[in-house]
Amino acid sequence: MIIAIKPGTTKEDIRAFIARMESQGVKVDYSEGASQTVLGLVGDTTGISEETLSAHHLVEKVIRVQEPYKRANRMFHPQDTRIDIPAADDSPRSIGGGQLGIIAGPCSVETREQIVAVARAVKQAGAGFLRGGAFKPRTSPYSFQGLGCEGLDLLLEAKKETGLPIVTELMAIHQLELFDEVDVIQIGARNMQNFTLLKELGCCRKPILLKRGYACTITELLMAAEYIMAGGNDKIILCERGIRSFDSFTRNVLDLAAIPALKKKSHLPVIVDPSHATGLAWMVPAMAKAALAAGADGLIIEVHNNPEAALCDGEQSITPDQFGTLMTVLRKYAALEEKTL
Amino acid sequence: MIIAIKPGTTKEDIRAFIARMESQGVKVDYSEGASQTVLGLVGDTTGISEETLSAHHLVEKVIRVQEPYKRANRMFHPQDTRIDIPAADDSPRSIGGGQLGIIAGPCSVETREQIVAVARAVKQAGAGFLRGGAFKPRTSPYSFQGLGCEGLDLLLEAKKETGLPIVTELMAIHQLELFDEVDVIQIGARNMQNFTLLKELGCCRKPILLKRGYACTITELLMAAEYIMAGGNDKIILCERGIRSFDSFTRNVLDLAAIPALKKKSHLPVIVDPSHATGLAWMVPAMAKAALAAGADGLIIEVHNNPEAALCDGEQSITPDQFGTLMTVLRKYAALEEKTL
Amino acid sequence: MIIAIKPGTTKEDIRAFIARMESQGVKVDYSEGASQTVLGLVGDTTGISEETLSAHHLVEKVIRVQEPYKRANRMFHPQDTRIDIPAADDSPRSIGGGQLGIIAGPCSVETREQIVAVARAVKQAGAGFLRGGAFKPRTSPYSFQGLGCEGLDLLLEAKKETGLPIVTELMAIHQLELFDEVDVIQIGARNMQNFTLLKELGCCRKPILLKRGYACTITELLMAAEYIMAGGNDKIILCERGIRSFDSFTRNVLDLAAIPALKKKSHLPVIVDPSHATGLAWMVPAMAKAALAAGADGLIIEVHNNPEAALCDGEQSITPDQFGTLMTVLRKYAALEEKTL
Amino acid sequence: MIIAIKPGTTKEDIRAFIARMESQGVKVDYSEGASQTVLGLVGDTTGISEETLSAHHLVEKVIRVQEPYKRANRMFHPQDTRIDIPAADDSPRSIGGGQLGIIAGPCSVETREQIVAVARAVKQAGAGFLRGGAFKPRTSPYSFQGLGCEGLDLLLEAKKETGLPIVTELMAIHQLELFDEVDVIQIGARNMQNFTLLKELGCCRKPILLKRGYACTITELLMAAEYIMAGGNDKIILCERGIRSFDSFTRNVLDLAAIPALKKKSHLPVIVDPSHATGLAWMVPAMAKAALAAGADGLIIEVHNNPEAALCDGEQSITPDQFGTLMTVLRKYAALEEKTL
Repeated sequence: MIIAIKPGTTKEDIRAFIARMESQGVKVDYSEGASQTVLGLVGDTTGISEETLSAHHLVEKVIRVQEPYKRANRMFHPQDTRIDIPAADDSPRSIGGGQLGIIAGPCSVETREQIVAVARAVKQAGAGFLRGGAFKPRTSPYSFQGLGCEGLDLLLEAKKETGLPIVTELMAIHQLELFDEVDVIQIGARNMQNFTLLKELGCCRKPILLKRGYACTITELLMAAEYIMAGGNDKIILCERGIRSFDSFTRNVLDLAAIPALKKKSHLPVIVDPSHATGLAWMVPAMAKAALAAGADGLIIEVHNNPEAALCDGEQSITPDQFGTLMTVLRKYAALEEKTL
Repeated sequence: MIIAIKPGTTKEDIRAFIARMESQGVKVDYSEGASQTVLGLVGDTTGISEETLSAHHLVEKVIRVQEPYKRANRMFHPQDTRIDIPAADDSPRSIGGGQLGIIAGPCSVETREQIVAVARAVKQAGAGFLRGGAFKPRTSPYSFQGLGCEGLDLLLEAKKETGLPIVTELMAIHQLELFDEVDVIQIGARNMQNFTLLKELGCCRKPILLKRGYACTITELLMAAEYIMAGGNDKIILCERGIRSFDSFTRNVLDLAAIPALKKKSHLPVIVDPSHATGLAWMVPAMAKAALAAGADGLIIEVHNNPEAALCDGEQSITPDQFGTLMTVLRKYAALEEKTL
Repeated sequence: MIIAIKPGTTKEDIRAFIARMESQGVKVDYSEGASQTVLGLVGDTTGISEETLSAHHLVEKVIRVQEPYKRANRMFHPQDTRIDIPAADDSPRSIGGGQLGIIAGPCSVETREQIVAVARAVKQAGAGFLRGGAFKPRTSPYSFQGLGCEGLDLLLEAKKETGLPIVTELMAIHQLELFDEVDVIQIGARNMQNFTLLKELGCCRKPILLKRGYACTITELLMAAEYIMAGGNDKIILCERGIRSFDSFTRNVLDLAAIPALKKKSHLPVIVDPSHATGLAWMVPAMAKAALAAGADGLIIEVHNNPEAALCDGEQSITPDQFGTLMTVLRKYAALEEKTL
Repeated sequence: MIIAIKPGTTKEDIRAFIARMESQGVKVDYSEGASQTVLGLVGDTTGISEETLSAHHLVEKVIRVQEPYKRANRMFHPQDTRIDIPAADDSPRSIGGGQLGIIAGPCSVETREQIVAVARAVKQAGAGFLRGGAFKPRTSPYSFQGLGCEGLDLLLEAKKETGLPIVTELMAIHQLELFDEVDVIQIGARNMQNFTLLKELGCCRKPILLKRGYACTITELLMAAEYIMAGGNDKIILCERGIRSFDSFTRNVLDLAAIPALKKKSHLPVIVDPSHATGLAWMVPAMAKAALAAGADGLIIEVHNNPEAALCDGEQSITPDQFGTLMTVLRKYAALEEKTL
C-alpha cells in the first residue's frame, strides 16, 4: 500500500502518523522526494482499510499494490486448484486443472418423473453433475418457492438412479443439515455478500459453487471466496452468471472476461452459467462455446424436459435433445483447449 | 397482465392455452383484433410469472399492467403509513405521514465513551434516533467486523443515558434474540434479497429499516418489503442509499428520484442515507438537504466524534459540530416541506 | 502523478526510464524506500497518459494526484464563474455566482402559436430563458427530427415577442452560421464527446450549455469543458441530465451529487435538467427542488402547452400552469440557498 | 404496437383517439375485452413514438411488438449480408456470410517505419486488413490527437507496400474528402449517436465499421445503422467493443452475447474489438477466441511493434509475434465454426 502525503505536512506530523501505522503491525517505508512524500506499507496489509486511511487529514491518496485476498490469491498458490467430487457411479468428477465440469438440470425440481428423466438424459449426453433447485430465491413472495425438503429428496432419488453427483442451492445455514448427501453446495448471486452465511460455510467441508453477485466486482467475488477459505474450506468453484447493465435485451450481461481475470488473480476454478446470464435459451449454445474458448473450467446449464411448462425460468431452459447436440459441439471446443470433458 | 399471441396461432391452441391459464385461478379476457389476438388476465396476477408465460411458444409479448406487490402498494392503501416508535424519554418518535425521522450516529460502535458522547451530541442537535453498527458486513474477512454483542450492550447503555431509540443492523436471524431492546432493526443493502431472512422478519413485530440493494430496482425494493409484509409485519421504512454506476467519484450514485417513485407506488415511508451513498463527508449536507426537498421522510447520517480514527467509514462521517450546523439548516427545509422535524 | 516501480528493477533501468520521462518535459522526483521505489512527476502532467505509463514493464501502478484539467479547475480559479447573457428586454441574465438561471420551454419547436404561447407563459412565471429544439437528435431516423431552420426562425420570433434569451441545441458545426441570434448554444448528451465539435466551439464566443453524456463520468464532463476552454471559450454552463442505470423506472438516474462534485472541482456553473433525467412530468417538481437544495445554479425544464400532443417527449413535459406553481415554490428554495431567482 | 387503454375510458374518447392515430397513417385494430380495451397498431409503426403515446391520458401501457428498424432488420432480409472489400493485392476480402475478417494494426499511426513494419507483420500472420488511427478521439485535449493528414498518408503508404485494405476512423464529415483511398471508414463509439454524421454517411458508398457506443443498447446500435442505411448505404459492419459497468478491472465489459443478439435481429456482419473492450493485452487472445466461438464475423485487434513506447493505448496492444501465435490458434476456432479465415 502506498500513501501519498499531502504537500505541506510537517515532518513531525508524518512521524506521528507513521508511529500510529506501525502500532497496527505493519512496517512503514518512508521516502521523501523534492515535492512529494510517499509512505509504503510493508507486510500484511489485508487488514488495513484504504477508506480509513483516506479519511486522515494528512493523506492525499492511497493506492493498494497488493490484492486484499490471500488464500484465493494465485501469487501464494501458483498451481490451478482442482476440485475432486466423489461419485456414486464408476467415475469420480473433477473441476479445474484441465478438467471440465458440466452441470445440467432444471431450474427447479418439480416432480420425480421430471427430475429423473432430465437426470438420465443429461447423463447420457455427457453431463458430469445434476443441478436442480429445491430452495429457490424468488423476487416475489407469491412466486413458486421451490419444493423445499421434498425437492431435495427427489434430487437424491435422481442421484441414486443415475449416480450423478448433485448440485443444489443453500439459502440459509440451518438448511445445511439437510444437505448431507448433496455433493456441491451452490450459493446464489443474491447471497454472495451474505457474510454470516459465508463464514459458516468456512466450517463446512463440501465443495461450494459460489456465484458472482449480479453487481459485484471481480475483487468482491474473490473476497467472498476468501471469507469461506479463511474459515478453512478451500474447495470453492467460482461462477460467472452475468452482471446488471442498462440494456434489457439479455437478462444480464455475461462478463466472459471475468474468466481470464479470475484465473490470473486466483487459482480457483471458474465456471459459467449461460442460462441465467442471458435468460434466453437460444443464446445458450453460443455463450457455452464462448465460455470454453475463454478458458472456463465448466458450465452450469438449465435443461428442462418441457420448458414451456417449467414452474420457473422456462424461457432460458434448453431441452435434453438440444443439450445432447450442444455437448457434441462442446467436446470439440474442449479438445482445442486441451481439456477433458 | 396482457398477453399478445403470436400471429398465425389457431383458435384451438388459444382455447387450450386459456384453459390452462384459468386453471391457475385467473380469469382470461379474450380479444381478437383483425391482425392481433390479445389476452388480458383479470384478478390477482401477483403469482403469475411473466417469465414462464414468455417461454410459451404461443406468446409474442407479455406486459404486466398491475404492480406485482399488494401490501406495499399505495393503490390498496392510499394513506401514507406512519411508523411510531415508543421512546424511553419523554417524546415518542414517528417516521412518515409528515413526521421526519433523523437517525444519527457512528458507522460502528467502538467504545462506551465514543457511543455515549456521540449519542448525547446528536440528541442535543435534534436527532430522533441513535444509529451504530455492532454486527458489520465488511467486504474483507480481515477487516474489523464490529464489536458484536459487546457493541449491542454499549448501544443499549447509550440508549439508557439519552433515551434515544436505537437503530442497528441485523445480519442473521439468530441474532434476533439479542435485539430485544433494539427499537428499529436495520437490514443492510447486501441482505435486501436474502429472502430467507426477509420471511423470518415477517414474524417479527419491530419496525424494519430496509435498505435498497446497491443494484436493485425500485420494484425489487418494494418486493423485498412485500416479503416481510406478507409475513405480517407492515412496519417497514424504506431507505435509498445509493446505487452502483460506472463513475467512482462518489462511492455510489444517490438516486433521489427513488423518493417520489417509491412514494407514488407505495404508502411506506422513505428515508435517505447520504453518508453511504456518497462516501464523502463534505457532500453529506448538500445531499441531506436535497433528500428533504425531494420528499424524504427522514435521514440516516453517520456522525463520529473523531472521523480520522474511525475503525470504519471515517471518510464519510461528519463530526457532531457539523451535524449540529446541518440540523439547523435542515429545520428550514423541513418547514418548507411542511414536515415536523 | 506517482509511479510505483516494480520490485526488483535495477537502478540503471530506473535511471533510463527517468531520463525518458524528463525528455517529455516533466521533472521526476525519485524516492527509494526499503522495499518500494516511487517516482513523482512534477510540473504539468496533463499531457502524460496514465495508460501509456501503465503499459511500461517497469511500472507497477500509476496514480494521478492532480486533476487532468486546468482551465476548468477550481484550484487555478477559486471564484465561481458567472455567465452573463445580454437580453433584449430590460434585464440581463446571469447563471452562476449566486444567480439562478431558469430555462423553460418545449422539447421541440412545433408552430409559431405554440412557441410564442409557451414563451409568454414561462416568462410570466419567471423563467429567465426560453428553450426549444429546432434540430433534434432522435434515436430513430423515422422520428420527427425537428423543424430545423424554420424552427430556429420561430424561436427568434418568440424571442422578439418576449425578450427572452434563447437556448437551443446545435448538432453540427456547420449549423453555427444559423445561430447568430441564439443566446446560449446547447450541446446535447450524445455530442459531449464529439471532440471535433468541442474544439470548434472553442473558437466561438457564445455561452455553451454542455450536457453530461448519459454514461460519462464527472471527470469526462470536465475534460469536455476543457476542450472548449482550451480553444479560448470559457463561457461554459455544465448540465447534469441523468445517467444510465439498470433500473428503467425513470428514463435515467439523476445524479444530484454531481452538483457538489462539479462545484468542488470546478468554478463553472452547474444546472440540472429534471425533465430528461426522469422522463416523467410528475417527478419534475420534486427533482427541481432537490436540485436547488443540492446547490444547482439553475434548471432547464420542459414546458409544453399541450403535452399529450407534443411531437416529442410529451411524457416529461409539464404545463405552463404547473410551471407557474413550481416557480412559486422554487423561489422559497432559492431564498434558503441565498440565491437570486 | 399494442396500446392498453386505461380502465373507465368512454367509447367516444377511444373513438376520437383511434381517429387521431389513423390520421398518422396506421390502421388501428380495436379489441374490447370484459375488463380491458386494447388497441393494436397495424402497418409501419417505425415513425410512431412510444413516448408520445405514453404521455396520452387515455393510455395505460404501450408495447412495441415490431422492432423499430427496417433496413437493418433480418425479418425483411433473411440472408446474412456479406461486405466485399476490393483489395490492391491479389485477393479481395469479405466480412460476413461465413467469411471472417481480421483487422489488425496499431491504435495510432506514429511513423512510416512503424506502420509499414506492423502492416507487413500482420499481413504475414494472416490479417486481411490494416487498421491505424490518424484522427484520434482522446478524452483530454492535451493528449496526442493523432498525426491527422500525415497519418493518413503513412497508412496509404503501408497499403501500397502490402496491398492490405485499410480501416481508419473518421471523426467529422469534412474529413471525408481525405478518405478517398481508405477502404473501410470506422465510426468510433463516441460518435455512434452523432446523428448528423450518420445521416451524411448514408450518402457515402464505402463500407462503414460502426462501433457500439459504450453505453448504447443493442437496439440503439441497430438504429444507428438504420440512420446510415436509410440514406442508401447498406454496407455496415457492426462492432462490439465493450460497455461501461461498475467494475474497473477491465476498461469495459465485453458483451459477447451481443453477437448472437445482433445476428438474430439483423443480417449485418458483427465483429469484435477485444483490445479496447478489455484494455489489457494479456486478455486479448482469450477474448478473441471467445468472440469467434460466439459467432463473430471478424475481429479488430491492436498490434504494435513496441507497445511500451506506443503514443496511446500501449497497455492493450499485443506484439506482431503474439499476433502471429494468436492467428494460428484462431484458424482452429474458425474451422470449428466452418468459417473462412
